[in-house]
Amino acid sequence: MGFSDYFAVWDKMTPERQNRILGSIASRKVKKGVIIQNGGEECSGLLLIKSGQLRAYMLSPEGREITLYRLFERDLCLFSASCIMKSIQFDVTIETEKDTEFWIIPAEVYKGVMEESAPVANYTNEIMAARFSEVMWLIEQIMWKSMDKRVAGFLLEESALEGTEQLKLTHENIANHLGTHREVVTRMLRYFQSEGMVSLTRGTVKIMDAERLRSLADH
Amino acid sequence: MGFSDYFAVWDKMTPERQNRILGSIASRKVKKGVIIQNGGEECSGLLLIKSGQLRAYMLSPEGREITLYRLFERDLCLFSASCIMKSIQFDVTIETEKDTEFWIIPAEVYKGVMEESAPVANYTNEIMAARFSEVMWLIEQIMWKSMDKRVAGFLLEESALEGTEQLKLTHENIANHLGTHREVVTRMLRYFQSEGMVSLTRGTVKIMDAERLRSLADH
Repeated sequence: MGFSDYFAVWDKMTPERQNRILGSIASRKVKKGVIIQNGGEECSGLLLIKSGQLRAYMLSPEGREITLYRLFERDLCLFSASCIMKSIQFDVTIETEKDTEFWIIPAEVYKGVMEESAPVANYTNEIMAARFSEVMWLIEQIMWKSMDKRVAGFLLEESALEGTEQLKLTHENIANHLGTHREVVTRMLRYFQSEGMVSLTRGTVKIMDAERLRSLADH
Repeated sequence: MGFSDYFAVWDKMTPERQNRILGSIASRKVKKGVIIQNGGEECSGLLLIKSGQLRAYMLSPEGREITLYRLFERDLCLFSASCIMKSIQFDVTIETEKDTEFWIIPAEVYKGVMEESAPVANYTNEIMAARFSEVMWLIEQIMWKSMDKRVAGFLLEESALEGTEQLKLTHENIANHLGTHREVVTRMLRYFQSEGMVSLTRGTVKIMDAERLRSLADH
């Protein structure tokens, strides 16, 4: 399986545009835990993920974090190439959450193709709308949902992503995903533990009662 | 000045597409304070603003509000036609903040043109990126900025939009813009008043020291 199998609108492009992109891409393998895009200074290119997992997050001036969304196999990461559109006026930081393999499409090549090709432009539009939707969901969470529900939801999401109930997560990790303080997370997890929903050991959270966590997260 | 003077990529469209859009638009005048898009049920069309001001906001299940962004003359409102893209998975409510005149482009007509025309698709992309940037700015505000700075910034923004220092705003109005509770706003405004930055009367907030509000908002 090559690049063309992963790039969703490949068949809607002219051969000339296909070749222009194929002739410019590079492929990379990056270990888990590496920051591959640090704010807005770089405009390294769009990333098309072959395997692995990326996390996009926002950093405060004081170094606090909040997770915006995750990217998985076949996802195209636009915001590592924010120079393709002048109206993208924000910075995200992107790190590998698992060992990740991806292709890089240089920003100027993609921009050139997008400006000529309606299918590529509309595809880019759909991707942006999908990320926008995830960020709007996040605002709803931040604004209207109490932190206990957000922690419960996060643990279940992690469990689904990792395929295990034994999560390797520090309280600090969880706080950084949710944009809160470690102390808040610790208090919440201790309460969950006292209710038999999780079991805590150093550096891990084990889900003991996923059903109750789910009903807490959903209501 | 007609529709074509307000629609930014008019000159980049073929005459056939120009006519398709011109033949479908309707123009409307709506008084201040009317909700013209109520969440996601409708997909009435894109609004191109001739004059006036719209506010896009998010509503919680309990009826709390937070302002996402404003739209002004020449802005194109996409999210009153969220059916043009399947990846737009969120609802916004849109109301007129001033008497507003706009054209409506039916969603299916715009969608048809956008799918064929790279310039229209790229223009739509830029608009979405601009709204996305405003929402990302909002997340930064919510996450990292204390409420006193947000209230100060909001009063200055309102003053600039209205062209006056005598703002007709209840504490409830301000709370709805910022997604907080009236009591929080009242406490903040009383503190501002005690410091000589504003003067409060029923239903109005008068800015007395814009410079100090500015330095509070910016630091």
